[in-house]
Amino acid sequence: MSETLTAPIIAIVYHSGYGHTEAVAQSVLKGALEAGAQAHLIKADDEAKDWELLAKADAIIFGSPTYMGSVSAQFKTFMDESSKVWANQGWKDKIAAGFTVSASYSGDKLNTLVQMAVFAAQHGMIWVGLGEMPGNNSSSGSPEDVNRVGSYIGMMAQANADQGADVAPPSADHKTAQILGARIANAAKRWSD
Amino acid sequence: MSETLTAPIIAIVYHSGYGHTEAVAQSVLKGALEAGAQAHLIKADDEAKDWELLAKADAIIFGSPTYMGSVSAQFKTFMDESSKVWANQGWKDKIAAGFTVSASYSGDKLNTLVQMAVFAAQHGMIWVGLGEMPGNNSSSGSPEDVNRVGSYIGMMAQANADQGADVAPPSADHKTAQILGARIANAAKRWSD
Amino acid sequence: MSETLTAPIIAIVYHSGYGHTEAVAQSVLKGALEAGAQAHLIKADDEAKDWELLAKADAIIFGSPTYMGSVSAQFKTFMDESSKVWANQGWKDKIAAGFTVSASYSGDKLNTLVQMAVFAAQHGMIWVGLGEMPGNNSSSGSPEDVNRVGSYIGMMAQANADQGADVAPPSADHKTAQILGARIANAAKRWSD
Amino acid sequence: MSETLTAPIIAIVYHSGYGHTEAVAQSVLKGALEAGAQAHLIKADDEAKDWELLAKADAIIFGSPTYMGSVSAQFKTFMDESSKVWANQGWKDKIAAGFTVSASYSGDKLNTLVQMAVFAAQHGMIWVGLGEMPGNNSSSGSPEDVNRVGSYIGMMAQANADQGADVAPPSADHKTAQILGARIANAAKRWSD
Repeated sequence: MSETLTAPIIAIVYHSGYGHTEAVAQSVLKGALEAGAQAHLIKADDEAKDWELLAKADAIIFGSPTYMGSVSAQFKTFMDESSKVWANQGWKDKIAAGFTVSASYSGDKLNTLVQMAVFAAQHGMIWVGLGEMPGNNSSSGSPEDVNRVGSYIGMMAQANADQGADVAPPSADHKTAQILGARIANAAKRWSD
Repeated sequence: MSETLTAPIIAIVYHSGYGHTEAVAQSVLKGALEAGAQAHLIKADDEAKDWELLAKADAIIFGSPTYMGSVSAQFKTFMDESSKVWANQGWKDKIAAGFTVSASYSGDKLNTLVQMAVFAAQHGMIWVGLGEMPGNNSSSGSPEDVNRVGSYIGMMAQANADQGADVAPPSADHKTAQILGARIANAAKRWSD
Repeated sequence: MSETLTAPIIAIVYHSGYGHTEAVAQSVLKGALEAGAQAHLIKADDEAKDWELLAKADAIIFGSPTYMGSVSAQFKTFMDESSKVWANQGWKDKIAAGFTVSASYSGDKLNTLVQMAVFAAQHGMIWVGLGEMPGNNSSSGSPEDVNRVGSYIGMMAQANADQGADVAPPSADHKTAQILGARIANAAKRWSD
Repeated sequence: MSETLTAPIIAIVYHSGYGHTEAVAQSVLKGALEAGAQAHLIKADDEAKDWELLAKADAIIFGSPTYMGSVSAQFKTFMDESSKVWANQGWKDKIAAGFTVSASYSGDKLNTLVQMAVFAAQHGMIWVGLGEMPGNNSSSGSPEDVNRVGSYIGMMAQANADQGADVAPPSADHKTAQILGARIANAAKRWSD
């Protein structure tokens, strides 16, 4: 069987207010593509978004900024729209993962990721975390380290409040986002075989 | 000084999709009024909602259904709108509390209440829970018990999915909601003195 | 290849204070065995517990009562002991799941299950929830329904505070626990193939 | 009435594995004392700890390292011991707050603080967060900023894994800890008047 036929389908559904989360979504996409997945970005707040792609996907990766301690209202609107799928458990046993961005290191980002994991569980999905040990947490560590924010249940990026998506979040977070994308591609392959 | 002048101002800001949360909000209101507060309902999804009342309030009580494991998108929209207030910490040191409704006993309602508490902390608010021991958890307990769902950090109501707000949630939850309203009125008085 | 060789190994590591959680653990075990797994119970507070079995397991299911809103101190002791395994990510990519018991319907059990999911993510594990729609949440529902408490991210049981493990939690929760055991057995098979 | 008589009593109950959390606890203590409170440290894992002081306290501040994503087993042992107080709601309406320390910026510290807030709510306590806007989150920010980790519901410190309590966490976190201590002292005064 050819590689193409078995390439897992990954949908990255995200909302971005100022471009930072979109930039991170693109790095997640890059990581998934490089790991051999058919990966696609879907804007959560696009009314014409591709629910059929979500239905076909082997894995769905959720991405949102953290606003006031949880996912943005735009992303929550998507979550609530998915209740129609939930009623029939249409996403049951798909792989799920999440990432979030905010200006502060903690910035209550964990609450956003837990919200996504609880949501995915309502859909009967299988939650896959980042799977990388934290960096940047010893005297020899550096802000260039992968997982410099120190997250596990999903991927966290920190973007300075006064900087555009061209420089924030910094490259370490983009590298971490690629790792998440690759991890989910590989998990989807393993789970689907 | 007259009682009227010192009556704390309590705003109950809520979203209700099918009327159950509104019915609970009215019971919270009743409890607050009976405890001597000037209490008011505000619809979270009313574009013309009274931000000045929220600014003047001694306490704000948040109410939302639990949809897909967290507050409704409509309520989250209000939360995100409040980021303008957050930037100046306009609600700092006000009393905060929360309640939520869903069809199942757990139904991930705790995640909604934690989301509200994390949000209130971003505003620098003081969080007051229900303050009632759980009922309905022994062989002599009953679904008529106050706090029959067994919540602490806020008030939880359970409303059958196929019943209207005239019968669901049942009276025990409305009684519990009144207790929350009275508790917040008394906390606001104590905190303001 | 024979069935025996491919049967997934499942470790159910739990703490039980008064016997209710142990009874639920036995139902999880039963469900896993009936689904063809090699499943074993491990007492979290047994000093001589079988870390090698945990190392070999395809899936680890965590079980604890909810005490004061989170896992028991005895179970947390096990969690902290596992930091030696964490340092080498020895459980990375194993399947994980959780269950908890308390006297109240909510009783903050969700906080316990989220604590377990966050913990599993630190270990790089793959989190599998209950995967059953909630029951007991409409006028035609019943306390005999599977998932009568209405949980997703793990399995929740409600055991009256004044009743022994012979009658509490009731049979509906034991049936739900068996479903969790079977689900994890099947997930471990699918993930390992 | 003299100052001494009205000085609020604050108990800071903490566990520290390697000294970092103890150092932070001392800064919380310093802040509370400077704000005019009668403040005391209590070791959570001291068998002879002063439960009477806890009973008399106007506010209790909880402190624990984050181990494997939640409070340490030693601190959880204290939490479970407090169930005797919980049964009579002996701490009802006391002020509560929390702080935690781990090596990573996020490091799942929010889960620890939420665990403490849920616990405090079981006791019927009033939760007071840090009340400081986050620093260190713009191009003009600095690791010297107060609240450099960006927490709200409690105080977070980041201590490099390979450094002793003499240098880790750095001074910014100690300053933030003092602010928490002062905030709780003032909250206890306002609440008690």
